[in-house]
Amino acid sequence: MIAASHRLHAPTLSDEQNRDTYGKCNNPYGHGHNYAVEVTVSGQVDAVTGMVCDLGQLDDCVRSSVVERFDHQNLNTLQEFASRVPTTENLAVAIFNILKQRFAAAHLEKIRIEETSMNSFEYTGT
Amino acid sequence: MIAASHRLHAPTLSDEQNRDTYGKCNNPYGHGHNYAVEVTVSGQVDAVTGMVCDLGQLDDCVRSSVVERFDHQNLNTLQEFASRVPTTENLAVAIFNILKQRFAAAHLEKIRIEETSMNSFEYTGT
Amino acid sequence: MIAASHRLHAPTLSDEQNRDTYGKCNNPYGHGHNYAVEVTVSGQVDAVTGMVCDLGQLDDCVRSSVVERFDHQNLNTLQEFASRVPTTENLAVAIFNILKQRFAAAHLEKIRIEETSMNSFEYTGT
Amino acid sequence: MIAASHRLHAPTLSDEQNRDTYGKCNNPYGHGHNYAVEVTVSGQVDAVTGMVCDLGQLDDCVRSSVVERFDHQNLNTLQEFASRVPTTENLAVAIFNILKQRFAAAHLEKIRIEETSMNSFEYTGT
Amino acid sequence: MIAASHRLHAPTLSDEQNRDTYGKCNNPYGHGHNYAVEVTVSGQVDAVTGMVCDLGQLDDCVRSSVVERFDHQNLNTLQEFASRVPTTENLAVAIFNILKQRFAAAHLEKIRIEETSMNSFEYTGT
Amino acid sequence: MIAASHRLHAPTLSDEQNRDTYGKCNNPYGHGHNYAVEVTVSGQVDAVTGMVCDLGQLDDCVRSSVVERFDHQNLNTLQEFASRVPTTENLAVAIFNILKQRFAAAHLEKIRIEETSMNSFEYTGT
Repeated sequence: MIAASHRLHAPTLSDEQNRDTYGKCNNPYGHGHNYAVEVTVSGQVDAVTGMVCDLGQLDDCVRSSVVERFDHQNLNTLQEFASRVPTTENLAVAIFNILKQRFAAAHLEKIRIEETSMNSFEYTGT
Repeated sequence: MIAASHRLHAPTLSDEQNRDTYGKCNNPYGHGHNYAVEVTVSGQVDAVTGMVCDLGQLDDCVRSSVVERFDHQNLNTLQEFASRVPTTENLAVAIFNILKQRFAAAHLEKIRIEETSMNSFEYTGT
Repeated sequence: MIAASHRLHAPTLSDEQNRDTYGKCNNPYGHGHNYAVEVTVSGQVDAVTGMVCDLGQLDDCVRSSVVERFDHQNLNTLQEFASRVPTTENLAVAIFNILKQRFAAAHLEKIRIEETSMNSFEYTGT
Repeated sequence: MIAASHRLHAPTLSDEQNRDTYGKCNNPYGHGHNYAVEVTVSGQVDAVTGMVCDLGQLDDCVRSSVVERFDHQNLNTLQEFASRVPTTENLAVAIFNILKQRFAAAHLEKIRIEETSMNSFEYTGT
Repeated sequence: MIAASHRLHAPTLSDEQNRDTYGKCNNPYGHGHNYAVEVTVSGQVDAVTGMVCDLGQLDDCVRSSVVERFDHQNLNTLQEFASRVPTTENLAVAIFNILKQRFAAAHLEKIRIEETSMNSFEYTGT
Repeated sequence: MIAASHRLHAPTLSDEQNRDTYGKCNNPYGHGHNYAVEVTVSGQVDAVTGMVCDLGQLDDCVRSSVVERFDHQNLNTLQEFASRVPTTENLAVAIFNILKQRFAAAHLEKIRIEETSMNSFEYTGT
């Protein structure tokens, strides 16, 4: 679970286009969400351990490289969003790319982020 | 559902006391949550309509006087939190007081706010 | 879980008053819901069994006297709603009264019915 | 969320076959459900807006062309089910076909309908 | 979240009475659950901090004195259940009594344990 | 829903390797979970019945061949896990193989098991 704030504002669009595109998400003071991040990995079940990979290791990796980085932050102030709008679509891409590099014990299938109980976003790296 | 950002910082405490009291919630750029607000009202079931009150009216009242006011806002910039820290405890009190004034068709019992799936806060006005 | 249909229409109100009071719930062909019913009982924990009452017995009683009666029915056609509008408020009262009579092994505290994920109703018998 | 009632009854089957096939869902007075509809669309993340499509537009389209059409209705009375049994399988197909025509801003991947917390149905158009 | 196993068997009852009382929960090899524990505390909102108590402290206390003690254990082997059947009713009492002693920063109102999505138990200390 | 206990311990690993691999899941007395099992089948919607298959039949099959077999058991004592560690990964494979044999009315797509609200496992038979 990542609690963070963001303001959706594209620098290449005019103020009016920004209001049209993002509506109340363009509010200058920002607003926030609890982002629930779901990570899916795949692979063969190991005949000895009965596991695809060590989920404790995966949890540690997600905590240290994703939660530590984004939790309780204003996404607009982070380097990942210096030249990209911090939409949840782009947050999913950023998290996928981080874990692709950091977790090699199984194949990374998908990042799914639930922004609210009414909206979720998936990225599968393709 | 209210999506908002806040920064927990008490003006009468030192910076160090603020960090001790609020931890990462004291982050200067703020962070955000989806606040799920649950309103409980009570009263006799009307013999003709079979209802305690008109829930459509209650929904309209919550939408116009609570959601419109707090959704997609940075709570720190609002008048309700000019002299009070925008904790979820204080947000529950603020919402209770607004609805107590605005909705008279049934007795207001409780405001419950789920800040995350792990934390919720209730205020019953007493 | 009870899946049932109902049409909200009070016989002592005019057609126009019915439309004003119940909105789209007054649709002449009816509509439906999944009602999730939650039963709360209370009492001392028995020193020998470690239980307040036998929950298997409570489940059987709820199944035979509540679910069997209301599930997959059109509530408007049932005797409980011959002279009362089948609102969820009145359904909670009806279920409370049935269980008060049928289940004596513990004190019946409350019936709570979730009509949708946005609406729930409670009755405590008072 | 769509609250609707239906009665499962196939005109080409005998009464006995209908009871065998649909069990209590064949009850002549109908019964109801809350259908939770989940729409999945896909596409490239736009480099300027950081979004695949405008979710506000998608919400408006779902509201005006799906929720308005099916919410608080008896499905058996609608033209979509004049010659088809109003099962949730067929409701998913009907909703998919409506949105395929009405929403062109992204690729429609899937309609998923949760009929109860124990049953859900998906249609991907193939 | 506490994942634990238990076998319900009262030493003062005969084998037949145990099977009658606990049904399949009397299976000699035990079985297990994920117990979701919810702790409710109450008090005045502090005028300076805007909080009733420090929820980080409460979390630490629950983790060290409750989760550490019961998680991934067979409840039948613990001292708390040496002379009491490890029902969820008795687990709620045990957790309430531990926290009553260990957490003094606010009033302990209630322990609620969800044994499955169909069953939950509350204890308020009275 | 299957409530069961297990102890994760691979016979071909040393005690130390077992503790390293499974952590607290290697506790000698076992521990337990509620496993929520989700079965996905696929096929053409039948033109007469409006259904892919009879979900009542599928429910009966899952109840008699899966829930009866695994519910309220200690997985380590079952024949399916005589030579395999009773991880949730292997439980998903075992359930998939049972249903593949027993349910022929539609194509078995996937078994998904939610071990806790934080962990789930899927097997698609390939």
